[in-house]
Amino acid sequence: MKKLELLYEGKAKRIYRTNEENAVLVEYKDDATAFNGEKKAQITGKGHLNNEITSLLFSKLHASGIRTHYIGKLSETEQLVKRVVIIPLEVVVRNVIAGSLSKRLGIEEGTQLEKPIVEFYYKDDALGDPLINEDHIEILQAATKEQVQELKENALRVNEVLKEHFLGVEIRLVDFKLEFGLTEEGEILLADEISPDTCRLWDITTNEKFDKDVFRRDIGDLAKSYTEILHRLGGQIACTK
Amino acid sequence: MKKLELLYEGKAKRIYRTNEENAVLVEYKDDATAFNGEKKAQITGKGHLNNEITSLLFSKLHASGIRTHYIGKLSETEQLVKRVVIIPLEVVVRNVIAGSLSKRLGIEEGTQLEKPIVEFYYKDDALGDPLINEDHIEILQAATKEQVQELKENALRVNEVLKEHFLGVEIRLVDFKLEFGLTEEGEILLADEISPDTCRLWDITTNEKFDKDVFRRDIGDLAKSYTEILHRLGGQIACTK
Ligand SMILES: Nc1ncnc2c1ncn2[C@@H]1O[C@H](COP(=O)(O)OP(=O)(O)OP(=O)(O)O)[C@@H](O)[C@H]1O
Ligand SMILES: Nc1ncnc2c1ncn2[C@@H]1O[C@H](COP(=O)(O)OP(=O)(O)OP(=O)(O)O)[C@@H](O)[C@H]1O
Ligand SMILES: [Mg+2]
Ligand SMILES: [Mg+2]
Repeated sequence: MKKLELLYEGKAKRIYRTNEENAVLVEYKDDATAFNGEKKAQITGKGHLNNEITSLLFSKLHASGIRTHYIGKLSETEQLVKRVVIIPLEVVVRNVIAGSLSKRLGIEEGTQLEKPIVEFYYKDDALGDPLINEDHIEILQAATKEQVQELKENALRVNEVLKEHFLGVEIRLVDFKLEFGLTEEGEILLADEISPDTCRLWDITTNEKFDKDVFRRDIGDLAKSYTEILHRLGGQIACTK
Repeated sequence: MKKLELLYEGKAKRIYRTNEENAVLVEYKDDATAFNGEKKAQITGKGHLNNEITSLLFSKLHASGIRTHYIGKLSETEQLVKRVVIIPLEVVVRNVIAGSLSKRLGIEEGTQLEKPIVEFYYKDDALGDPLINEDHIEILQAATKEQVQELKENALRVNEVLKEHFLGVEIRLVDFKLEFGLTEEGEILLADEISPDTCRLWDITTNEKFDKDVFRRDIGDLAKSYTEILHRLGGQIACTK
């Protein structure tokens, strides 16, 4: 497998073409960003940690029968995934009220939801990734009505698997953001990453935060928090420096 | 019918108790407000105009089989309505993209939609009346799933009636906001007002605006615009001064 030219550089990852037509290489960067790119830092080891964590979680999801883009890990910071056309929606699942939802509804962060909820945000940095409803998705032609149902079902299945998995290591899966993509055959695959950058992960007893809120809110050492998550998930890395 | 004590004073109306248990008196004020109360003015005649326009439109809706709170007009600025407990949702129907939706989706104002869409906003001034989805409505216990379906259906029926009605007088019904309430028996009634304060109304040929955007955007004489709507709807008022 050959790493060819850079196709896209995002805030957290670089996507490279490979000699395989239907696979791209994802390289995880050490950049941390928050508030739509307004706050920035370099965190040594973050790329490595997120690559490991995402690989573990996508493997777990695959084993639970969820169709994902993940093929395999290539190096400390690189993984191979199926190339998809990303559906321009951020699919958010929440088990506990936190962050923007707490502000939107005026309900205290930490409030447990009776059942998980799903939200769609329009993936558009210039618009600030706004919350949208299903009618808006139709207007934007971001996905068909049937695809929206499939996205919701998939997102809730992912939640069931991950919630249990994290609970087993005494982590409360508060919320997370998923991205899905379409293969050439029109199949929907779970894509992008699942890491402490894209989830809220709280210690089940102390409510200590082990996710990007540590960076957003300056309440700790990000690499240490992400390392804790990796260790709880049974992963190891030799050294982050 | 006796006008008794003030029950509630809002930005545009006052609600009074009456000697009839299940009816309240609505008094339309001359206050104009926009941007969640940040911009304010007194517009002589506005209360009278909105009382007349709302009365005409609610009568039209009643004649079309839609259940509303409207009982009858009492004076230039007063009407009698059935007392309800307002469901804390602003139900917005849109036929054309304008205002906040144009900004949210990055689509030009004036873009015609293939079919009308419905949005729900949480009626909470302190939170800035945020857009919410159906899962949020459940969390807030603002309405049951069944009520949400009924609200949507009712809102779209109101749209069909009003769209046609305005088209007949060469006005394009761009969008509007509805409020619904529950009677003691649990029946859902269309409540509040329908006026140029709560609708976007554009001339079918020139796109001239005859609604609150005239005030929001300082592009004309509000009382003149609302008078034009009243006249087109076949209404008359003796004198606004
Ligand atoms: N399997 C895949 N095939 C193609 N693109 C992918 C795949 N998985 C993820 N991507 C896309 O690659 C990019 C990853 O970069 P990164 O996460 O750094 O982006 P970002 O800064 O969050 O910006 P964006 O708003 O584009 O997501 C994202 O646009 C993501 O949607
Ligand atoms: N039939 C009704 N019974 C009881 N209350 C009603 C009825 N119709 C409308 N209302 C309520 O009366 C108030 C009307 O006042 P107004 O429109 O001035 O309020 P507002 O400033 O828009 O504030 P609010 O955020 O409460 O709507 C609103 O709260 C409205 O929901
Ligand atoms: Mg990303
Ligand atoms: Mg009002």
